[in-house]
Amino acid sequence: MKLVVLTGIPGSGSTTILNRALEKVDYLHLNYGDIMTEIAMEKGLVENRDELRKLAADTQKEIQKEAGIRIKEKSQSENVIVDTHCTISTPAGFLPGLPKWVLEGLNPDTFILVEAYPDEIMVRRLNDETRERDAQKASEIQLHQEMNRAASMAYATLTGATVKIINNHDNHLDTTVEKLVEVLKL
Amino acid sequence: MKLVVLTGIPGSGSTTILNRALEKVDYLHLNYGDIMTEIAMEKGLVENRDELRKLAADTQKEIQKEAGIRIKEKSQSENVIVDTHCTISTPAGFLPGLPKWVLEGLNPDTFILVEAYPDEIMVRRLNDETRERDAQKASEIQLHQEMNRAASMAYATLTGATVKIINNHDNHLDTTVEKLVEVLKL
Amino acid sequence: MKLVVLTGIPGSGSTTILNRALEKVDYLHLNYGDIMTEIAMEKGLVENRDELRKLAADTQKEIQKEAGIRIKEKSQSENVIVDTHCTISTPAGFLPGLPKWVLEGLNPDTFILVEAYPDEIMVRRLNDETRERDAQKASEIQLHQEMNRAASMAYATLTGATVKIINNHDNHLDTTVEKLVEVLKL
Repeated sequence: MKLVVLTGIPGSGSTTILNRALEKVDYLHLNYGDIMTEIAMEKGLVENRDELRKLAADTQKEIQKEAGIRIKEKSQSENVIVDTHCTISTPAGFLPGLPKWVLEGLNPDTFILVEAYPDEIMVRRLNDETRERDAQKASEIQLHQEMNRAASMAYATLTGATVKIINNHDNHLDTTVEKLVEVLKL
Repeated sequence: MKLVVLTGIPGSGSTTILNRALEKVDYLHLNYGDIMTEIAMEKGLVENRDELRKLAADTQKEIQKEAGIRIKEKSQSENVIVDTHCTISTPAGFLPGLPKWVLEGLNPDTFILVEAYPDEIMVRRLNDETRERDAQKASEIQLHQEMNRAASMAYATLTGATVKIINNHDNHLDTTVEKLVEVLKL
Repeated sequence: MKLVVLTGIPGSGSTTILNRALEKVDYLHLNYGDIMTEIAMEKGLVENRDELRKLAADTQKEIQKEAGIRIKEKSQSENVIVDTHCTISTPAGFLPGLPKWVLEGLNPDTFILVEAYPDEIMVRRLNDETRERDAQKASEIQLHQEMNRAASMAYATLTGATVKIINNHDNHLDTTVEKLVEVLKL
């Protein structure tokens, strides 16, 4: 059984290709934030997902760690793909989505980074009205993707997982989905 | 209370913008090498900073580790900003300024990398007569900054800290200082 | 005594410059895969190198770890240079050649990455008929080298080792060998 982590910055199209790939492979799809919310609700700490970030940093860290362990457990009996952030671009800088204490419990087999050209991402963000997204400049997008690559190799070093980059360029959705399916079937 | 690590290669202008930012925020400014010297002097191992590098590698490593712990302690009661090197360009390659054993004690909240274009850095190094600096070629400067980005994400993975890149381009000092102040005030 | 790890993607020319440099420095040259095979044969697990990859992943991991420790032991009495892969480009993505559990035992002083321009590497791979090599596109080569840089800084963060990049461009063999010799003599 495999445990795959899928990431991509807003506008990379990771959600789209994941949903399409899931029609073709037998994987349980989990979202990291959902599992954290589930755990925090069980503990009676929150009543919904929005309250998560209001918890003390140490509590959030503890829940983040437990979520990693719970996801790993689920992957014992079936293939699991988790979507989460490689790093999150915050005002204080790039925050690693999978710091050491999460990786120790999660211990995935593969990280997949869905990428696209900065100009493609910019246009997709303009078109996207479902989420609030900053119109980051192309250079910031490029930087974010570069920092994600660096972070992913640090994650891989701690876990021994592979890092797969999948380019999700415009007008190639079918081929891109196929590439993701291939990795998931390995 | 926050603990911020500020780095930038020679010519990045990190010292200039730090000094300017410190006029506007309430942060204790520490230099990693100063704290190491302080500890080594207390132990009667050296009489001045220059003697630090003559100590056995294992002793230096031990002092480097203790310095991290001491800086962390100081950050319990006030905001602290430490300036140090992300990596040091040595004849044997890029030496991480904050290896695992330092990060474990230091455990900062944010790493700030002050960057600039290689050609800006080259000109600044030529103009700078106060320190002995090699006239590295633009590509070497670019490489050093790239390796620092990679190193910083490894540091972030081990600590959970954020990594903030601040561009310090020519003729934008005020805006750059303001950006640093903003991060420090978060 | 020093322990140096030398890496380079296929076509980088790392083997060529290593062999030339070994004529000029007193280093024991080990190949990571050879040591792993040696250990697996002693344990009666395999009869030749090809059988290594047929072993269970956990067994391979254990042997990989022991190989690191054995190489480290050898470096106590003489200078050692090991050639291995920084990351291996697999269908599942970039696999770190030196994950945490290997680095803990190996604990090298320096990682050397031999690099070249993607177009140089492409031509060298076409000319090379001794190994089966995919004709990866230039962008894939560039990506692989970039991921290796990121991985190497994660390795350095865990070990405190330096990361030295040596450019092995066409028609500069002597100068390149000399650069490697210089690092090995440090």
